[in-house]
Amino acid sequence: MAYNSIILRVEMNHALIHFGEVASAIGKAGGDVTSIDVIRPGQDVSVRDLTVHVTEEGEAGVVEAVRALPGIQLVNVSDRTFLAHLGGKISIQPNLAIRNRDDLSRVYTPGVARVSSAIHDSPDKAYSLTIKRNTVAVVTDGTAVLGLGDIGPYAAAPVMEGKAMLFKQLAGVDAFPICLDTKDTEEILRTVKAIAPIFGGINLEDISSPRCFEIETRLADELDIPVFHDDQHGTAIVVVAGLLNALKVVGKRMDQVRVVVNGIGAAGVSICKMLLAAGVKRLVPVDREGAIVRGGRYPHHPMWQWLADQPQVEAETGLLKEVIRGADVFVGVSRGGLLSADDVLAMAPDRIVFAMANPRPEIDPEEALPHVKVFATGRSDYPNQINNVLVFPGLFRGALDCRARRINEPIKLAAARAIASVVSGSELNAQYIIPSIFNEQVVAKVRHAVIETAILTGVARRTPPDFR
Amino acid sequence: MAYNSIILRVEMNHALIHFGEVASAIGKAGGDVTSIDVIRPGQDVSVRDLTVHVTEEGEAGVVEAVRALPGIQLVNVSDRTFLAHLGGKISIQPNLAIRNRDDLSRVYTPGVARVSSAIHDSPDKAYSLTIKRNTVAVVTDGTAVLGLGDIGPYAAAPVMEGKAMLFKQLAGVDAFPICLDTKDTEEILRTVKAIAPIFGGINLEDISSPRCFEIETRLADELDIPVFHDDQHGTAIVVVAGLLNALKVVGKRMDQVRVVVNGIGAAGVSICKMLLAAGVKRLVPVDREGAIVRGGRYPHHPMWQWLADQPQVEAETGLLKEVIRGADVFVGVSRGGLLSADDVLAMAPDRIVFAMANPRPEIDPEEALPHVKVFATGRSDYPNQINNVLVFPGLFRGALDCRARRINEPIKLAAARAIASVVSGSELNAQYIIPSIFNEQVVAKVRHAVIETAILTGVARRTPPDFR
Repeated sequence: MAYNSIILRVEMNHALIHFGEVASAIGKAGGDVTSIDVIRPGQDVSVRDLTVHVTEEGEAGVVEAVRALPGIQLVNVSDRTFLAHLGGKISIQPNLAIRNRDDLSRVYTPGVARVSSAIHDSPDKAYSLTIKRNTVAVVTDGTAVLGLGDIGPYAAAPVMEGKAMLFKQLAGVDAFPICLDTKDTEEILRTVKAIAPIFGGINLEDISSPRCFEIETRLADELDIPVFHDDQHGTAIVVVAGLLNALKVVGKRMDQVRVVVNGIGAAGVSICKMLLAAGVKRLVPVDREGAIVRGGRYPHHPMWQWLADQPQVEAETGLLKEVIRGADVFVGVSRGGLLSADDVLAMAPDRIVFAMANPRPEIDPEEALPHVKVFATGRSDYPNQINNVLVFPGLFRGALDCRARRINEPIKLAAARAIASVVSGSELNAQYIIPSIFNEQVVAKVRHAVIETAILTGVARRTPPDFR
Repeated sequence: MAYNSIILRVEMNHALIHFGEVASAIGKAGGDVTSIDVIRPGQDVSVRDLTVHVTEEGEAGVVEAVRALPGIQLVNVSDRTFLAHLGGKISIQPNLAIRNRDDLSRVYTPGVARVSSAIHDSPDKAYSLTIKRNTVAVVTDGTAVLGLGDIGPYAAAPVMEGKAMLFKQLAGVDAFPICLDTKDTEEILRTVKAIAPIFGGINLEDISSPRCFEIETRLADELDIPVFHDDQHGTAIVVVAGLLNALKVVGKRMDQVRVVVNGIGAAGVSICKMLLAAGVKRLVPVDREGAIVRGGRYPHHPMWQWLADQPQVEAETGLLKEVIRGADVFVGVSRGGLLSADDVLAMAPDRIVFAMANPRPEIDPEEALPHVKVFATGRSDYPNQINNVLVFPGLFRGALDCRARRINEPIKLAAARAIASVVSGSELNAQYIIPSIFNEQVVAKVRHAVIETAILTGVARRTPPDFR
């Protein structure tokens, strides 16, 4: 149940109503008054802000109950979520104050000219003398935002700002939202390349499939800074991290299990690729039309074709409810309510189910839990939340610190192993295969793995001091 | 003379040299040791950082003198300007901390979805619920940076970051540098339009002429947020501000004086336009080829042609040294050393000279000062500095606060009058026609004038509380 705090500003006529009557009306409607601020006191009439804890579903009822009271004028209803967004969620701060003309001549004209000249002479110095070293663009075209779909660049901005907050708070990365007023692939490529000089990395976000594949691949090839589409790889990395630990719990090995992945869009493709890189030998990718099979022809889906060409992909056709029989692992990034308890029961013993459709998982958690050994979702109200907040802060922290040219497959796999390693052997159990996003070890371990692997695979341009 | 602080890290062998000998060698070479920090103490050998105040010209001599000393190992030379740039000059900060899952669900998923939906339903809410309300892009292609010319987007970044610092410190505006890896006009237009949604305004910077005219005009027409090319209009606004006050000092009126403007590039064109808007009736725009005259044909220079079509522009041809005779006002945005004392003496009595070529003015200040009534330059080491830092912070503060659709000519003129008005009648004199950039009234007065004029001319979309 999603709770929310709303703030009701009311004008009370004391001759007609007492506060106790207001509070009990709110209580009857399902709300709970958690604080009262008197905005304008008065003998006859006062204005107060009432903070009310209420479920999302109950909100309208509470508002109506208050509005209906005699002697009450409902001036305004705000809620804490909207209040937290007022004026935006990030700001830009100078790293030092300009107190006098001497300061000014150092950070601006005329002194800055010497710094600009130095970068002009050795472009690499942009990394030490500008914000490039620590700055990432969070780029979206607003076409696949959360569960909301194509809501455009303006409506996507709050999500990108939230991401920028997490980048800074969790990993000290400066991230700036770039919300593109175009959905054209070529235009997006041109724009991101044109604005790249100030950035040390590009985090692509909420760009719909299949354009996201080409946009990421071509940007990664044409830019010399890391490019990472979080919707594809963020989830995939956490899935592999979770699976590494889940397999330990059930005592199976990656090269033994048969894995069904349902929903072969942006995230599903990346999950399949990473599972293969992690050693899975029996993979069944499934979409609405059924299994994508080895040797199949998928002329309109280049990524499906790539999967069909992999030897580890099974050749047997069938719809989800058929191919899931006997599977050890189910990974869903599709839509709610596709599976029943019977489908899960048809899987192999010690089954692992990651049902990550949002907000409603592929199978209702209450229905699945009695029948599976390890269960994970994208939701925070059950154990084992698959949340890509575990990935991007540490991944970019590491990539920036070693000035990685790109994020390659070994780096992603190393990040997954690093996340899995945060859960120690003694802590590991079916209800705890994935660390919390607030676990402070996560960023440090992911960063370390990213840098180590970037150096090993030759994409690092700098060895950070702690690796020398 | 430009002074600079450098920091010499030296390893001293105490058996071979004493600190006094180091200090006197630095003194003889023209430097002054202003502080000493012992980095690694030791009985035989110590490492120290010596901060040395020295002229830019003297720097190499000091470094050589220290390097030549016996018993001294020069480990490193840094200077305070470079140190101030290490890691960049701005950073991005969350406006509130995410302390727990409740906070997270408000500023990020799942709560943010309601905010995104609200903006999707009413796009205007982007102004209240995202950073758009307070955020400006400082956009450059790096083609006309300071006196350095076309140094590219990487080398331009420190200037843009410095500007972002000033935006925040002086006016509370969040500004982010966008350094474009393209010089193509169409590409720049496409890129800026594509990234516009997150920004409440666009400050164009250091884009070379003549492309800057088309880029600014078309962006202003095609975007619904204010677009302002600072190199054109920032200087022009301060020139008009200074001239308003200078004319008071000499007791002449705008519609009486004959004004020569030399250097009809980005800034020169805007100065001419603003002077006409301010009421100048006798204008002589001059470039390398001589005066641009009324009725002339300038097929390769659309802006010159525009000037040639204005009735206030004089018809008489001639080179600078000819047309300057009898002028009341000279405004130079060209290059150093074009004028002699004789040229100035040929002007009308009570002459006003604004010689703003950088770093060397059109006439040497020492040569000009005895012969002119009011003298201004772009330099900070003489009175009356024409500095566009007086303009952009307050201009964008006002434009953002009233959500101005554009910066029109009346707004620019109002900003000029506001800057002039900071110098009160009792303070006004030939050495003080322009306020200091650190004068706290400047931003408030410019902001007020911008909002008032935006409302009057119908380009404001919001009335700020202090105007209601």
